[in-house]
Amino acid sequence: MVHHSKPMSLQEEFHAYRSRMNARILGSDSKVFKRLWSLDTLTYQDEGVLDKKTKELMGLCVSLAMRCDSCVKYHIEEALKAGANEAEIVETFEIATVIGGSIVIPELRRAFDYLDELLSTDSADS
Amino acid sequence: MVHHSKPMSLQEEFHAYRSRMNARILGSDSKVFKRLWSLDTLTYQDEGVLDKKTKELMGLCVSLAMRCDSCVKYHIEEALKAGANEAEIVETFEIATVIGGSIVIPELRRAFDYLDELLSTDSADS
Amino acid sequence: MVHHSKPMSLQEEFHAYRSRMNARILGSDSKVFKRLWSLDTLTYQDEGVLDKKTKELMGLCVSLAMRCDSCVKYHIEEALKAGANEAEIVETFEIATVIGGSIVIPELRRAFDYLDELLSTDSADS
Amino acid sequence: MVHHSKPMSLQEEFHAYRSRMNARILGSDSKVFKRLWSLDTLTYQDEGVLDKKTKELMGLCVSLAMRCDSCVKYHIEEALKAGANEAEIVETFEIATVIGGSIVIPELRRAFDYLDELLSTDSADS
Amino acid sequence: MVHHSKPMSLQEEFHAYRSRMNARILGSDSKVFKRLWSLDTLTYQDEGVLDKKTKELMGLCVSLAMRCDSCVKYHIEEALKAGANEAEIVETFEIATVIGGSIVIPELRRAFDYLDELLSTDSADS
Amino acid sequence: MVHHSKPMSLQEEFHAYRSRMNARILGSDSKVFKRLWSLDTLTYQDEGVLDKKTKELMGLCVSLAMRCDSCVKYHIEEALKAGANEAEIVETFEIATVIGGSIVIPELRRAFDYLDELLSTDSADS
Repeated sequence: MVHHSKPMSLQEEFHAYRSRMNARILGSDSKVFKRLWSLDTLTYQDEGVLDKKTKELMGLCVSLAMRCDSCVKYHIEEALKAGANEAEIVETFEIATVIGGSIVIPELRRAFDYLDELLSTDSADS
Repeated sequence: MVHHSKPMSLQEEFHAYRSRMNARILGSDSKVFKRLWSLDTLTYQDEGVLDKKTKELMGLCVSLAMRCDSCVKYHIEEALKAGANEAEIVETFEIATVIGGSIVIPELRRAFDYLDELLSTDSADS
Repeated sequence: MVHHSKPMSLQEEFHAYRSRMNARILGSDSKVFKRLWSLDTLTYQDEGVLDKKTKELMGLCVSLAMRCDSCVKYHIEEALKAGANEAEIVETFEIATVIGGSIVIPELRRAFDYLDELLSTDSADS
Repeated sequence: MVHHSKPMSLQEEFHAYRSRMNARILGSDSKVFKRLWSLDTLTYQDEGVLDKKTKELMGLCVSLAMRCDSCVKYHIEEALKAGANEAEIVETFEIATVIGGSIVIPELRRAFDYLDELLSTDSADS
Repeated sequence: MVHHSKPMSLQEEFHAYRSRMNARILGSDSKVFKRLWSLDTLTYQDEGVLDKKTKELMGLCVSLAMRCDSCVKYHIEEALKAGANEAEIVETFEIATVIGGSIVIPELRRAFDYLDELLSTDSADS
Repeated sequence: MVHHSKPMSLQEEFHAYRSRMNARILGSDSKVFKRLWSLDTLTYQDEGVLDKKTKELMGLCVSLAMRCDSCVKYHIEEALKAGANEAEIVETFEIATVIGGSIVIPELRRAFDYLDELLSTDSADS
């Protein structure tokens, strides 16, 4: 459907699949999924006492410790958008890996890989 | 080894790998694996008080909540074969996602993707 | 605070703690928790294509496979209220234990214990 | 061995067991455990880019989503000591519960219970 | 029902509950549970290439990393019966904790507690 | 970047990614990751009472039961290097699958696949 002269980046691949399937799920009649998505938005929004950046770093920390690859990608991106820098993200990786143990390491490798891609894309863009 | 004029569907890829490796495992001398496979068959069989369809939907619900991609594919297919329709499978997805939380969502996307492929293949076949 | 001439049953203990803490949580200002509780109610309600009993048995199956003691107690009770009988609950236990493996067995023991208490209370009442 | 005129609070019970067993573990010859404990201390210390309070709230968020009762208790206490207030802790609870799903709710009840005990002790002390 | 002049030890409490509930489960009509129990026995038996002691230490290692309290107790006892000594059990604890991370530590405390009780009972008996 | 006349084997792919990302992680300033890697090395080293082969088989058993694909690959290789034979590795697979249940089976398939590749490479080399 989409033509690329070069292979998709990790980010393009993740975004394409995520957008297509979210549209499919929210396009169904399910009230449960609509409310779950809206609850998710409410949870991370920039109100209350913790700021958006801290909340996204928390979501990232849990996602890495629980080894959810797409969740990690999503929260790295949201944390960067909310103003987190590389050092803050790496410290979040540290906490997740110490809590979750060496079994988290393979997911940690993919997390660094995705972070590096996003950071290099950002500097290439500017 | 196998030549395809077009890329394998999700279903073809899953079936090919599953068949090849199941044959490898059950072809070994392991009594433990033979008995485990036979116990698995016994558990879902259409006897006792719950019917096959309900049991497969339960297997699907656990597989999704515990984020086991191949298990989800397997039980979607078995549930459809046992007579489950799309609406019943989507309600099963809802229960699994509410119990397991937003960390289940990436697996939910793949579950919808596989369901859609099976449903479109079915109508194409008829 | 509460005086008992005999020790609380498993059921009394579970209900007392659950009621007290649910009131505490929903008595807070958290919109997130209010919506999560209401989403949970929506998910298991007797509408749509799967009946309440089947949904509660699914919730039970996931809870046991994921070894959540209070969740198991809750769904055993709700399944019984929705009309499930002992044989249906035991088959649900079987599926959960085969999927989750021998690590589920300690939780399975507590599940049988709670089921037996509820069943004996029911016959004592009638 | 220890005589109490009244039953131990949740906090006293947790502290007594934790201290006794940590002394036992670190009193053994295990280099692995000594280094793991020291790595844990290093991870949460107040250096680098994230402050101690944020790190403890992250540890709390992961502990709750992964349903580790003693870990939740430990990080609630450390977060309070590092200056977190009730509202920040409750928002951390929200994130953990939305990520981990309804299966986290029983642990959430115990988390609120422990938080309330600590907050009431603090005001009683002052 | 049972009268004790002193409180039950951790071992007595675990054994009493385990025996009572295993009898209940295997006394039911469930073919699935009978076969699962017999598969479990087959898996750890002293045949094949790994000896009983090594298999029990493996079972212990998984049980601790996956934080199953009763499973840990069971495999500590079986490992000791199969000839494991304290040092071998502690090294097994180390591997489990490094793989599973700091979230395993609360379960590690209970594991040491149970091990110490069994070791002191053994020397008292001899 | 690297040119292959034929597709990479499972082993080549795993090694290439693992080496590249480990270099990235340990090349960062993180003291936490440096110490975690060194703790990991310490844990499996051939000292103390359990030999290297037994420790690697334990690591493999936990990795399979907890369904960590890269961890399984890593420990199969290390176990083979430490002198484990096919039969010992298959018995380790059995224990992991019985503890973790049928949800482990998809990971078990990949484990056999990787084991077979390593064994056939070894014989091809000799």
